[in-house]
Formats: sequence, structure tokens, C-alpha cells
Amino acid sequence: MTDKEIKLPFPTPPIWKLLNIEVIEMFRGYGRLVMPFHKKLTQPYGIVHGGAIFSLADSAVAIAIATVVEPKTKFVTVEMKINFLKLVKEGVMEAKARVLKVGRVIPAEAEVFNNDKLVAKAIATSIILDENNRF
Amino acid sequence: MTDKEIKLPFPTPPIWKLLNIEVIEMFRGYGRLVMPFHKKLTQPYGIVHGGAIFSLADSAVAIAIATVVEPKTKFVTVEMKINFLKLVKEGVMEAKARVLKVGRVIPAEAEVFNNDKLVAKAIATSIILDENNRF
Amino acid sequence: MTDKEIKLPFPTPPIWKLLNIEVIEMFRGYGRLVMPFHKKLTQPYGIVHGGAIFSLADSAVAIAIATVVEPKTKFVTVEMKINFLKLVKEGVMEAKARVLKVGRVIPAEAEVFNNDKLVAKAIATSIILDENNRF
Amino acid sequence: MTDKEIKLPFPTPPIWKLLNIEVIEMFRGYGRLVMPFHKKLTQPYGIVHGGAIFSLADSAVAIAIATVVEPKTKFVTVEMKINFLKLVKEGVMEAKARVLKVGRVIPAEAEVFNNDKLVAKAIATSIILDENNRF
Repeated sequence: MTDKEIKLPFPTPPIWKLLNIEVIEMFRGYGRLVMPFHKKLTQPYGIVHGGAIFSLADSAVAIAIATVVEPKTKFVTVEMKINFLKLVKEGVMEAKARVLKVGRVIPAEAEVFNNDKLVAKAIATSIILDENNRF
Repeated sequence: MTDKEIKLPFPTPPIWKLLNIEVIEMFRGYGRLVMPFHKKLTQPYGIVHGGAIFSLADSAVAIAIATVVEPKTKFVTVEMKINFLKLVKEGVMEAKARVLKVGRVIPAEAEVFNNDKLVAKAIATSIILDENNRF
Repeated sequence: MTDKEIKLPFPTPPIWKLLNIEVIEMFRGYGRLVMPFHKKLTQPYGIVHGGAIFSLADSAVAIAIATVVEPKTKFVTVEMKINFLKLVKEGVMEAKARVLKVGRVIPAEAEVFNNDKLVAKAIATSIILDENNRF
Repeated sequence: MTDKEIKLPFPTPPIWKLLNIEVIEMFRGYGRLVMPFHKKLTQPYGIVHGGAIFSLADSAVAIAIATVVEPKTKFVTVEMKINFLKLVKEGVMEAKARVLKVGRVIPAEAEVFNNDKLVAKAIATSIILDENNRF
């Protein structure tokens, strides 16, 4: 199943095209996204740059949150912390995000896997924007 | 002054080319990098995706750390936390990173500005890889 | 100057008495608090437990925020991240906190010093409670 | 089962006595600790101060890590990030910590429950001290 078949809760983000991020699965409070290894994502040691992995994890969080808020509700990540556990040099990265609490402030967590091993873990806080698109 | 004139402490990371990240200034314990706004970096609201800002901040941290370790010493970010303070919709993002302590474990902080306003703040922890390139 | 002379923006928190935390200075967007070393705050190696240092830093953040919100406005820390840079074995710990942005969501940072050396650095996110004391 | 019956991997930390923290369960890579609500742990709204919850979570992480390192190996938390999800006003807080990866750098996570609800979630990074007790 690819995101061509999954109806995204928002237009495809341009950065997803840049990084080749795709939604694989989503249901209430949960999102699973993938990003294949590509040389363009790497830092000088040939490993995937932390920023690419963060982007994938943050995107998974956004999908998970989009499933628990009203349609067209806008929200943004106000902070995220990520621990990198293993270096990624090949294969596909898969992020699984889960909403920890529904409310005005929405904490969520994400785990990133590569070859079935946990390579990163993140906790994020998002907030619903007010009527002026502010937070 | 551009990074064409600055001698980088490591080969230009492929992801810097993807995101258009460039080093502007570096001295012992400090790095300043820029990344111009581009639509390809955005999420659906037209604002720069947090992952792009994280990538810039993390790259600034790497430059700052590279100035305090022995040449050819390899290190990786083991974790980073970033707070997003303002949405970025245009202009240039500038990250200033500073090493907080030199050692086997290297904490550093980074601030990201846009139009002279603080838009993100991060704290990271890096570690020097061992002889087997492990951490 | 001690907190007996400083008019606190809220009643003295019971945990401050437990940990001997005291406000030394406060002005708009800023708070400076101290906590003396005491054996009761330590972990098994005789160093101050990270939780005590976190408590001091979080308290400094609360004082800094209290100076920028309306009187009687209630707010809570929704998340905080702290890096420990040096072990603390004696003396006084001093935390300096600074609001990074005023709004519904309030990011702040805190630095903790011991013998004039930076021993910890934190970034926190607080939120103003709604009329039902929820966040 | 109380920690009187559980053989702790290190002497009881003085701060555990101060906060009434106790180990309930431990096995390889895992620790479960409790801390009962007490007014002394609160901030001005009558809720448990984040620093007390952080202390419990960090202590749980330490127990979990102690189960995976060699006896007498010293380690410290170099950083921890915690999200507070619900206010705690009564009852017992229970922290469950789990090592995410064994190595020189040891990431771990902790969840804190109160009345069977998740009230906080943390990710930490610890490091094994070198022969000079440095990190």
C-alpha cells in the first residue's frame, strides 16, 4: 500500500518529495512512513544525516496527529527531541508515530527503524494553531 | 565570505547540497551556517519544515565541534532537541552553534535566526566515535 | 538579597523548601535562583542528582515566566530537556533562566552554574492553562 | 515487594530517601520504581513539581542501566528530556524505564504513570564514566 492509495490529511509536503518520504499506514493516533536510503541524504561518513531522520520522524508525528484533530485544523511541532541509536547506511527507514495525548497541546512519540532495528527515538510536542495561525 | 573560501573540516555533506546549506563563519568552538528559504523545504502551510531547520542546526553543531577535535576525528550527534519559536516563510535561515564543553561527550547549542529573529533553539550531544567507528 | 526580600509571584512551592531553592534575582523575562549543595540531594557517587538540578532549572524557568504573564495567570511546564555538563559535589548551584518568546506557548532556557562553571543547560516549553486549569 | 527485598545495584541514593523513591521491580534492561504523592513534592497549584517526576524517571533509568553494565561500572545521565502529560495531585507515581541500546553510550526511556494513566514520558542518554570518573 502506498500513499497514492492513502488519502493524506493534507497536501503532500514539498519536503517529502525532496526526501522521498511516503505514508504507508495511518489510523487513529498513528502514522507509519518510510524514506529509502539515498546518497543525497548522507553526511560525510556515508551515513544518513540526522536531519533527514528527524524529518521522517517529525512527518510521522504530523500524520499521527492529523488523525486525531478536526479536518482542516492546523497544528505545528513546537519542539522535538530525537536520540540516534544506530548509524544508517542503506535500506529503508521506517518511522512509526503515536499520539500520547489528545488536546490543545499534543505530545507524540516516534520510533525509526532500519532493517528491523530501532535506529532513532523521538518525543515531540505539537500545538493547534489559533484562528490567526499563531501559536 | 562563502564556504568556497572557507576550508571545511570534512568533505561537503551531500545533504548540504540538497538543502543548500553553506558555512559562513567558523572559529574555535563556533560555526555559523546559512540555508536560504526554498519552497522545496516547506510543509503544507508554506512554512519551512522543522526537519530542514533541524538539519541546519545539526550541521552548525557539527562544524562547531569539528573545530575543537583533532583533525580526522570522527564524531556523531547522539541526540538533539530543538524548539521552534517562529514559523519561517521566506528569507535566509542562519544557524549559530557553540560547543558547550570539550571532551569525549560534546554538548553544543545552536540558535537559528530568520530576519534577525530567533526562530529555533537547540541543544545537542555528540560523541567521538571509537576506533571501530562505533559509539 | 534573598527571597525574603523578593516578592515572589506565587506562594513558595513546598518543593523549594525541601530542596532549599531560593530566588535571588528576577526581572522581566528573567529569574536567578540558587540551591546549595547538600548531601540529601545526592546520588550514590556523592554528586548532586540530576533531578535536583532539573528542579532548580525548572523553578528558574517558572520565575522567569511569571514575570511576563498577567498576575494570577497559571502555567505549567509541558516539557523540559536538560544536559548535564559537569558533576556537582559541593558549593552552590545557581540557575539563570530566560524567556525565549512570550505567547500562549512559552519557551525558555536555563543555565545552571556551580563555582562559576556551567554545569547544566536546559530548554523548556510552558503553556498557559485554560480557564479549567487544563493544558 | 519492596526495595528492602530487592538487592539494589548501588547504595540507596540519599535523594531517594528525600523523595521516597523505591524500587519495585528490576530485571535485565528494565526498572520499575515508585514515589508516593506527598505535599512536600508539590508546586504552588498543589500538583507534583516536574522536578520530582524527573527525579523518579531518572532514577528508574539508572536502575535499568545498572542491570546491563558490569557490576561497579559507574555511569551518569548526560541528558534527559521529559514531557509532562497530566498533572499529578494524589496517589502513587510509578516509573518504568527501559534501556534502548547497550554500549558506551546508553539511551533509555521512561514512562511515568499515576492512577494507571501515563503522566510523563522521558528519553535519556547515559554514559559510562572513564577510569578517572569523567565523561
